[in-house]
Amino acid sequence: MRILGIDPGSRVTGLGVIDGHRLVAALDLKLGGADMPGRLSALFDGIRDAIEAHRPEVVAIETAFMSRNPQSAIKLGQARGAAICAAVQCGLAVHEYAPRLIKQALVGRGGADKEQVQHMVRMLLKTNEPFGADAADALAVALCHHHTAETAARLPAGVRLR
Amino acid sequence: MRILGIDPGSRVTGLGVIDGHRLVAALDLKLGGADMPGRLSALFDGIRDAIEAHRPEVVAIETAFMSRNPQSAIKLGQARGAAICAAVQCGLAVHEYAPRLIKQALVGRGGADKEQVQHMVRMLLKTNEPFGADAADALAVALCHHHTAETAARLPAGVRLR
Repeated sequence: MRILGIDPGSRVTGLGVIDGHRLVAALDLKLGGADMPGRLSALFDGIRDAIEAHRPEVVAIETAFMSRNPQSAIKLGQARGAAICAAVQCGLAVHEYAPRLIKQALVGRGGADKEQVQHMVRMLLKTNEPFGADAADALAVALCHHHTAETAARLPAGVRLR
Repeated sequence: MRILGIDPGSRVTGLGVIDGHRLVAALDLKLGGADMPGRLSALFDGIRDAIEAHRPEVVAIETAFMSRNPQSAIKLGQARGAAICAAVQCGLAVHEYAPRLIKQALVGRGGADKEQVQHMVRMLLKTNEPFGADAADALAVALCHHHTAETAARLPAGVRLR
């Protein structure tokens, strides 16, 4: 299954495409420069372009972390809104995963640190390609969806994962 | 000048179109029912449809109010992100106005209450049409942009409003 993982941010949005455990593409979409509406539109366009270029079947995105700062929460929300709209407008379903679940799926421990997760992303994808921290987070959520979907497919009929 | 005002929300988004002081359209876009990605996409589609139907030249939106609750801030941010993307994707510039500035422009007092603002919206547009509270807020920000743009146009060359 080909999956696009997205790690949305108002300045940089990480994108990662995998096909099973094969790395297809990883990029940090840098949105700086324009005003806020311009950045959101660049984010929307960037995701649509990535979907057209790499043809994922589904999108995975991290559940919003709970910032203490409402201003940051608004900005993150805006970036998420643009990203999710782009995916749905391209006809793709969007699956959300909580940060703890992503860490658990990759490292086996919900409290794992960022470096461990990035290390596992490279191990699982068998790559030394240099990609940014945001792209690595995007690949992590894509891998989490891959594992979750695979586990669900192996279950006998009638058993549903939640 | 034809202006689309937007009051974004994750459950209901208010839309209001004015042409000078003439009411063109007012509606509460109800997004309930679907999951979050579906609601954001419905918001995006609803705004694009309104732009295609009423052909505004510009979009005005209220600056995000600062919620104490980060979960609400994320949800509001997501709705704003979808709304702003829809406008920019339709080729329209988006102007933001702070709530205090909108009240000042309409009622002459930044601390005016919601009812006073809604009363002034009806007075200025000379209408008794029944529209919802969210549509009224959307019309208020559209009127604020109209007044601001008119004042700016009357200033001698070289003077800029901020």
